[in-house]
Amino acid sequence: MGEPHRVNFCNNILDPTIKELLLNPPKNDSIVSTQGHIKSIRQFKNIGFIDLSDGSTYLSLSIVIGNPESAFKQNRYQVGQSISVKGLWRDSQGTQKHELVYDPEENGHSLSLIGGVTESYPIQKKSQTLQFLRTLPTLRHRTSTLAAILRFRSFMESKMNDFFESESFVKVSPPLITSSDCEGAGEQFKVEPLNKPVAKDKEEDLFFGKNTYLTVSTQLHLEVLAQSLNRVWTLTPCFRAENSNTNRHLSEFWMLEAEICYISDVRQLTAFTEAMLRYVTVSIRDKADSINSSGNFDDLINSRFNKLDIENITNRWSTLLSDKPWPTITYTEAIDIINKVKNKGRLKGRLNWGDSIQTDHEKWLAGEHFNSPVFITDYPASEKPFYMPPSTDFNPERPTVACFDLIVPGMGELIGGSMREHRYNELVAEMKRRNMDIEEMDWYLSTRLNGSVPHGGFGMGFERLISYLGAMENIKDVIPFPRAPQICHC
Amino acid sequence: MGEPHRVNFCNNILDPTIKELLLNPPKNDSIVSTQGHIKSIRQFKNIGFIDLSDGSTYLSLSIVIGNPESAFKQNRYQVGQSISVKGLWRDSQGTQKHELVYDPEENGHSLSLIGGVTESYPIQKKSQTLQFLRTLPTLRHRTSTLAAILRFRSFMESKMNDFFESESFVKVSPPLITSSDCEGAGEQFKVEPLNKPVAKDKEEDLFFGKNTYLTVSTQLHLEVLAQSLNRVWTLTPCFRAENSNTNRHLSEFWMLEAEICYISDVRQLTAFTEAMLRYVTVSIRDKADSINSSGNFDDLINSRFNKLDIENITNRWSTLLSDKPWPTITYTEAIDIINKVKNKGRLKGRLNWGDSIQTDHEKWLAGEHFNSPVFITDYPASEKPFYMPPSTDFNPERPTVACFDLIVPGMGELIGGSMREHRYNELVAEMKRRNMDIEEMDWYLSTRLNGSVPHGGFGMGFERLISYLGAMENIKDVIPFPRAPQICHC
Repeated sequence: MGEPHRVNFCNNILDPTIKELLLNPPKNDSIVSTQGHIKSIRQFKNIGFIDLSDGSTYLSLSIVIGNPESAFKQNRYQVGQSISVKGLWRDSQGTQKHELVYDPEENGHSLSLIGGVTESYPIQKKSQTLQFLRTLPTLRHRTSTLAAILRFRSFMESKMNDFFESESFVKVSPPLITSSDCEGAGEQFKVEPLNKPVAKDKEEDLFFGKNTYLTVSTQLHLEVLAQSLNRVWTLTPCFRAENSNTNRHLSEFWMLEAEICYISDVRQLTAFTEAMLRYVTVSIRDKADSINSSGNFDDLINSRFNKLDIENITNRWSTLLSDKPWPTITYTEAIDIINKVKNKGRLKGRLNWGDSIQTDHEKWLAGEHFNSPVFITDYPASEKPFYMPPSTDFNPERPTVACFDLIVPGMGELIGGSMREHRYNELVAEMKRRNMDIEEMDWYLSTRLNGSVPHGGFGMGFERLISYLGAMENIKDVIPFPRAPQICHC
Repeated sequence: MGEPHRVNFCNNILDPTIKELLLNPPKNDSIVSTQGHIKSIRQFKNIGFIDLSDGSTYLSLSIVIGNPESAFKQNRYQVGQSISVKGLWRDSQGTQKHELVYDPEENGHSLSLIGGVTESYPIQKKSQTLQFLRTLPTLRHRTSTLAAILRFRSFMESKMNDFFESESFVKVSPPLITSSDCEGAGEQFKVEPLNKPVAKDKEEDLFFGKNTYLTVSTQLHLEVLAQSLNRVWTLTPCFRAENSNTNRHLSEFWMLEAEICYISDVRQLTAFTEAMLRYVTVSIRDKADSINSSGNFDDLINSRFNKLDIENITNRWSTLLSDKPWPTITYTEAIDIINKVKNKGRLKGRLNWGDSIQTDHEKWLAGEHFNSPVFITDYPASEKPFYMPPSTDFNPERPTVACFDLIVPGMGELIGGSMREHRYNELVAEMKRRNMDIEEMDWYLSTRLNGSVPHGGFGMGFERLISYLGAMENIKDVIPFPRAPQICHC
């Protein structure tokens, strides 16, 4: 970060982490204390080694043990224990460039056990499957791969902050408890106090004076705030009580949503989201490059043991960073391409105008056909929610709306967005057409009567982005404690 | 921000905001278009003025109208409407340094109505009480004061990000839906799907396979993650179904929580939180100063119309930034001071060791007595939760725990934190003493059996900090859509 105030504010309060020690190494031959978990132990006749990890980086600090017999006499050291060690900091010929030498015979050196482990401590150096690790919710982030993913997630969030700040957005905190949830389609969670008042049938006796749910999307509240603050974004939990357990779904997930005023065309939204994703991807690639060249610190890539994973990561980054702008096609063009190219000469699987584009179509389009992220715009109105306005080149025979999905190779949909109908009469007419409860949506509609301005926005499941850029197949591995049907482990 | 990639990534996608126009003004006499809401209108015989605001800053852009009779003929312009205007950008002698000249007789100039308002548009230029504005949840952020508070909030969050990043913390996303909520004291919200399965009495028929609640604090999950990642923090919603409606409480609020491994003393936590708050306060003061000197842009202060508010803001900032470190006293010393100084010579109100320190005591200590933020450490064990370990100088006659509260003048408690008992046997013994369900907490306790390390942490209600540094009396005015008993307006 290079924050100017750092030294003044926080100096000497916390001991340096292992990452900090390796990045700003102490003087050769100075006495250094450090702490961490034992990743591995090797004991020979005259020398021993402990790899020590404190969670600050995927790298371990190598502890070189002199007189191992005497050193290991006091305690039985095991993988997983936390220890504290004080010894001589020394430049090294090894891969790590530095090591800490502990010798029980030397003055001022010390090695002590902080926290023991059970005999069956399950996190071992050998590579364990992610599926098995999911059964160890409190320990799985001790593995290099899953710790690195959480650090990667934190870095991505930070870069998103930078991006939106540089584009004059205000980060806002919309409510998670809501009373109207028109987009929930019955798949909301209900919220009520554990200790209910006695007479619970009357609305006014409810805690909030009405029925309340967990939000499925903060969009409607963001729209309200955008009409006051111009450009707003948020990264908040959203909730879906959908009873499906897939690699791509969570019951509680984090959604990045943005609303932008004073735009007039869905192409501004696609250009903006492309800029956003390119910014974040460049940031992670530059970090990987710059740190690699100065000392092999690339957390995400080095924490992966599968060559295919690493290829996948770097391929995805380069695909996103292609020299050419990402293609944009309309829904109608997409259907046409699928029929003419994918289903060439076949009647089976042929799509009619109005059909949904399925995930495997999306993967084919972005993957085999374009080999690039692709924006699909102007979907049929019947496929999309009530708040989307008609397309610019609206055709009443085939009514479409001003919206887009971003689909990416290997995954399918990553972002969905649209212009929002900002004209009161048009919006109410559409809601009536859909038999929606106008009165319940009064608060939302009121913005259309009070200096309404054209605006649009989008939403992106943050875990999907992390899965994608980090090449993790299962979304449950990029959030610390996943929630899904029958899954709420601690 | 000065992000290096900005120009490449997002140039020309979005029109500049009014803030951007004023910060990087176009050339004198160039034609410029802009959009926004009408804040005020004045019409004279030969000239008219519209103050235009787009929510990007508290400042309005002054639109100077030539030939007002002809200009105002087409539409009846009113406060609150959104308009689009194209005219001549001109340096000005006025307070704003720039203005936009619109003349209907000039080629290339235009003025048009985008969104109308109802006759009763309630946001008027005259100062309205915050209490009244709370009845207008979708419009109140059009006022300078409440828009500035949300921008201030966004800025503070960004500075918190910078601080924790520079201190090697990982930002994590703990779950909001939890199954064990030992700290909830019965004041949790229950979560269940709106569409319940038919047989809902069996645990395995529940959506998550167990009863679930909204979290009241993410601390326990953060502790687990810290033991893998070393230093973690989060800023997430927390929920309390407490049936009290005060200036200081919300049912849904954002909590900043952090857990730090490898620390041994509560004084490291107090020093760290002091550094954190000083960093954020310096950042906002420097922003106010630097922007003021280059063009009067200090959003927060200039958006306040009450002189006392402004004094309050600057006083609070200087109190926090005092040259001397903030005092630290123990609970026992605090009781002593209250009895000897505040209650001098009186028996009434005298505190006995073990009594709670009430909010008015806290306000007196931090306000009249110290005129500084004050750390109170080592409270009686009986006043605090199960996970706090004994104080360093533990006295079995008066058992205290290694914890702290930070209290600030005019508000009372702002932060609470402690070391966490990291030894399995001691923790289980304390839980048994309190008749807690050990089995339900198995997952949490398991970390104490697997390489446990000393650690501690703290929690701070984010809205409290914003209220404090922004001198807003009611916490409901620093969150966009407050949730409290009987309050869930949209």
